Amino acid sequence: MREKLVVGVDLGGTTVKTGLITSSGVILAERRLPTLGDEGPEAVMGQVRKSIEGVLASAKGKAVRGIGIGSPGLVEKNGIVKAPPNFKGWTSVPMADEIQAAFDIHTEVDNDANTAAIAEAKFGAGRAFPNFLFVIWGTGIGGGIIMNGQIYRGPSGGAGEIGHVSIDYKGPLCKCGTAGCIETYVGQRYLSARAVEILKQHPESKIHALVGGDLSKVEPLYISQAAHDGDRVALDIFTEAGTLLGVALGGVMNTLDYRVSIIGGGISAAGQFVFDAITASVKANVMSPMRDEIIVIPAQLGNTAGMLGAAGLVL
Amino acid sequence: MREKLVVGVDLGGTTVKTGLITSSGVILAERRLPTLGDEGPEAVMGQVRKSIEGVLASAKGKAVRGIGIGSPGLVEKNGIVKAPPNFKGWTSVPMADEIQAAFDIHTEVDNDANTAAIAEAKFGAGRAFPNFLFVIWGTGIGGGIIMNGQIYRGPSGGAGEIGHVSIDYKGPLCKCGTAGCIETYVGQRYLSARAVEILKQHPESKIHALVGGDLSKVEPLYISQAAHDGDRVALDIFTEAGTLLGVALGGVMNTLDYRVSIIGGGISAAGQFVFDAITASVKANVMSPMRDEIIVIPAQLGNTAGMLGAAGLVL
Repeated sequence: MREKLVVGVDLGGTTVKTGLITSSGVILAERRLPTLGDEGPEAVMGQVRKSIEGVLASAKGKAVRGIGIGSPGLVEKNGIVKAPPNFKGWTSVPMADEIQAAFDIHTEVDNDANTAAIAEAKFGAGRAFPNFLFVIWGTGIGGGIIMNGQIYRGPSGGAGEIGHVSIDYKGPLCKCGTAGCIETYVGQRYLSARAVEILKQHPESKIHALVGGDLSKVEPLYISQAAHDGDRVALDIFTEAGTLLGVALGGVMNTLDYRVSIIGGGISAAGQFVFDAITASVKANVMSPMRDEIIVIPAQLGNTAGMLGAAGLVL
Repeated sequence: MREKLVVGVDLGGTTVKTGLITSSGVILAERRLPTLGDEGPEAVMGQVRKSIEGVLASAKGKAVRGIGIGSPGLVEKNGIVKAPPNFKGWTSVPMADEIQAAFDIHTEVDNDANTAAIAEAKFGAGRAFPNFLFVIWGTGIGGGIIMNGQIYRGPSGGAGEIGHVSIDYKGPLCKCGTAGCIETYVGQRYLSARAVEILKQHPESKIHALVGGDLSKVEPLYISQAAHDGDRVALDIFTEAGTLLGVALGGVMNTLDYRVSIIGGGISAAGQFVFDAITASVKANVMSPMRDEIIVIPAQLGNTAGMLGAAGLVL
């Protein structure tokens, strides 16, 4: 094996996924453990260490050059992780220093939107593009900016918060305090609420049957199933959402002179028609010389993106 | 004189301003000539050459290390200038190559929003900030992004088009084709039209007297005069405009993880209350950890910014 070996840790809300990964992005070994986010930071850090020990054992003495970790929450440049949502009792943990001290291996930590963007840049749909905007469309809207092949973190490490770009200054108030953030239109909870509103007018939609008539159960997964079955209402819900997302992306394209968006996350899996809607909307929201060059494509890496991007931090 | 000497050319819609400039930003000599934009590209390029000859004569044989030019229009990375608004008969001119060939001096060309941003970064209000967004608020809304002390041009040279960031996806159609661009709210013509609408309801405003009762004459200059006199209606007009501008700037701050906006251009000169309104709005439109760090300040260089920033291209 001529390739470098590193460890990539995807610290998720429910599962820690840790891989022993080669410099070309091959996952040689993997450990999955429950995150134990309800049990406080000591428990979580214990699971992270245990998962790393597991894959290091698979290295069988070969040198491991670094450990990369993708974490939720605000990650400062020195690898301190602050206030990850859904982790109890967690204010601030010097994650990079703790892991580096435990294993005596160079360790880098970044937020999970950035590591997913890095994964797509190095090993996924972004390999062809030195400059692109990566978007995670799921519970919220996250983003990462790849610039000249590198992640752009900004002066204090918070760049890419495109979920909180406003598309209507008179729009609904977001939990962040701003009016009309794109997240308040197309984030999972908001999209579901919008769907319920539309479904009340459309008893013919297949979504009613998929949720057993209980509109409180409506979520993107069911809308997506109905859309795949050709349900007109479901298609319209996603097309509207994609069109709104394209407004926010268009503003980012104009600001950064970018052409390419790569979109991952659960909701983006609904189908090609969502990408068609986003693409048409981005084109309508950028300067005319850019229109023919606009590209909006799905992320390619799925569940392994977190580990691969974390590995990318130290490759 | 130990300092380097360069030439900076500010190619404006009506006047070519050219300076012989030291590396610390001192303008040793200056020539102003009419642009002759109505007479076609040959005439304009002749005026540019004549103004450069004029300041080179003032160099009295000392070595001039470069010529920088700030131009309206779309400037490609190789110094080709396309379609400057208000220049007749101009499709595409290889400005950098022509000037470099004429004087045998290394020549760089960039668009005038970028050169103004560079001027503020090197010699003006941006000296304290390695990362800021520069905004020109005048006829339109232009922008330049300073990143790590350098201008960020983007993959094809078009970055910073913040005038065409949408603040309302249901808003008025901009001439660029997008709905709700910030320029359609606060660009000079739009701001004047909005003022006329408001003035019809407010006969008590001092603006009526300033335009001799002729609302077709309303423009930002008069609104600004009335605001300086404490006219409530004029203050409200600018406060509304500043608030809307802050929505667009907030989205850019969130995307780039930026804190600082520096605003120049004619309309920004209305007074501190405009900056207060923009600042409050940017704070309301960024993620909460950034709020206390938001800074919105005026550009410092005024009429010399174009020449100084053009010089900055070759310093």
